[in-house]
Amino acid sequence: MRNRQKVAVVGVTGMVGGEMLRVLEQRDYPVGELCPVASERSAGRKVSFGGREHTVRAIAPEVFEGVDVALFSAGGSTSNEWCPVAASKGAIVIDNSSAFRMDPEVPLCVPECNMDAARNPPKRIIANPNCSTIQMVVALAPIHRAARLRRIVVSTYQAISGAGARAVEAFEQQARAFGNGEEVPAGAIGAQLAGSLLMHWKVDGDTLYQEEELKMVNETRKILGDAEIRVSPTAVRVPVATGHSESITIECHRPISAREVRELLAGAPGVRVVDDFANGVYPKPTDCAGTDEVLVGRIRDDVGNPGGVQMWVVGDNLRKGAALNAVQIAEALFG
Amino acid sequence: MRNRQKVAVVGVTGMVGGEMLRVLEQRDYPVGELCPVASERSAGRKVSFGGREHTVRAIAPEVFEGVDVALFSAGGSTSNEWCPVAASKGAIVIDNSSAFRMDPEVPLCVPECNMDAARNPPKRIIANPNCSTIQMVVALAPIHRAARLRRIVVSTYQAISGAGARAVEAFEQQARAFGNGEEVPAGAIGAQLAGSLLMHWKVDGDTLYQEEELKMVNETRKILGDAEIRVSPTAVRVPVATGHSESITIECHRPISAREVRELLAGAPGVRVVDDFANGVYPKPTDCAGTDEVLVGRIRDDVGNPGGVQMWVVGDNLRKGAALNAVQIAEALFG
Repeated sequence: MRNRQKVAVVGVTGMVGGEMLRVLEQRDYPVGELCPVASERSAGRKVSFGGREHTVRAIAPEVFEGVDVALFSAGGSTSNEWCPVAASKGAIVIDNSSAFRMDPEVPLCVPECNMDAARNPPKRIIANPNCSTIQMVVALAPIHRAARLRRIVVSTYQAISGAGARAVEAFEQQARAFGNGEEVPAGAIGAQLAGSLLMHWKVDGDTLYQEEELKMVNETRKILGDAEIRVSPTAVRVPVATGHSESITIECHRPISAREVRELLAGAPGVRVVDDFANGVYPKPTDCAGTDEVLVGRIRDDVGNPGGVQMWVVGDNLRKGAALNAVQIAEALFG
Repeated sequence: MRNRQKVAVVGVTGMVGGEMLRVLEQRDYPVGELCPVASERSAGRKVSFGGREHTVRAIAPEVFEGVDVALFSAGGSTSNEWCPVAASKGAIVIDNSSAFRMDPEVPLCVPECNMDAARNPPKRIIANPNCSTIQMVVALAPIHRAARLRRIVVSTYQAISGAGARAVEAFEQQARAFGNGEEVPAGAIGAQLAGSLLMHWKVDGDTLYQEEELKMVNETRKILGDAEIRVSPTAVRVPVATGHSESITIECHRPISAREVRELLAGAPGVRVVDDFANGVYPKPTDCAGTDEVLVGRIRDDVGNPGGVQMWVVGDNLRKGAALNAVQIAEALFG
């Protein structure tokens, strides 16, 4: 039996924080003591874990005393300020924000892809990648190892839950109005998503790419350990609650076939091939809520590029895209 | 003033048929006599046009007597059977189905791209392309003329209205149930679209592509008159009522830049550039309902492919994607 640990979850009242608690419970992570942490504003609230209520503590240096693992999901500025504090108290920090992802001294880890990189992190901080990137690299890592990826063109169909609890609430209001034929209120989303599409991430003024898209470029290279992989991304928010979907077109340094990809993915960790398209079987976002695996379907020889392959990848953006991946990193480090 | 014509609209009680009537009226097409045609089942119903009611006639050889232009949108089997009949009676037939699109003796026409090909059609039949293809080629034709397209990777975000009136009704029921947190009925769509995504077009068993996708491959080549253009398509239905969106990645036989593409499209017929992404301006499906132009935004140098460009193209699938394009062909032939 593994030693019981003191585990802090920072941002515990958020969507991903809540999912972290569920994942820790479901996977029977050896939590000896839970330390639920949030902002001053949420302190004093209760969260349920391990069959009892725990009081949320306001973030402060002393909450990290004796903590073995601190899982952060409270936004970039909180991570920037507090991950180093938690690490200095001796915790291993697994941070779900983008704050440290491209720091050369911080491993960016998806256990199925590059767990070795995450052992002995020099700053005691390990970064959890962007949700869209995680599910893509889980599906592509086995192909990269076999044939080395040269190029990825990816268009996303991203669920709103990645934008947080307030956005989800706004989406529910929008969906109700849209369904009843009423005017759709923008609410916390800031624009109409129900019955429409949005590209509402922060824009990089130089490249005119959304930051979400540049994360898919840079994080993919770092996780797969190949700075030459070329990624052409388009990130789109769709009116779906949970479950990111991705239309992916790849080419490798040598020709590959749909058949080879299907074989590579059939036994790959963290992947479930859901691909009998001639009989109408392919992954849908509604299939993936609460699922640990990344679902891959529509694997086909690229009609527009001999030797290339196209596929469709669906994952639970709150689980494998965030909470589950973070907990899996902790399991691999301490398991 | 142009001569007044006898115009038949076949499938007049359908979504596209109804849109054809609206487009003929709005553009003041010189209709001397309207001949509204549908199946036996819909015969006797009334449609409104030019300020008065017209009785829908059941399809039969005699309804095409004296018809100058017959606009068909009643499905492939009706077109296969009846377009030749209408043509044999002397009508010029513009067919919105896929029945004749790849027939080498039938021009496949988007007026902005290849109107010359549609003059003097040998079978008196002209095919109207697939909706997703039309909006894509309107946006890409000016680029093809300037730099010759080599490759297109396209992922679609298609509205339900392209699937017809019963599907739209089912979607409205689904949206209401989804918005109210109830179980979503499959209805005429056959699966849950509200709150999810579908890939529900007929599948080609050999290639494992949807027929909708292969149309984008083959029709693009025929319209642009270049059999070497390589198209890698993914077609996805999104929970949007009207307005198809497309994430498009292109490369040409010579390097191109976003700046050049923006200049080429700024003056292009049928295109409206909606592209100030740094200030949050880009096309959304909710912008395009009832719009004649294809909206193009997010034109950017491809971060994953130097010399290539990415863009986002949105169009009203019932108008430019179907009814408007058909009427524009008639205008160009007889104008």
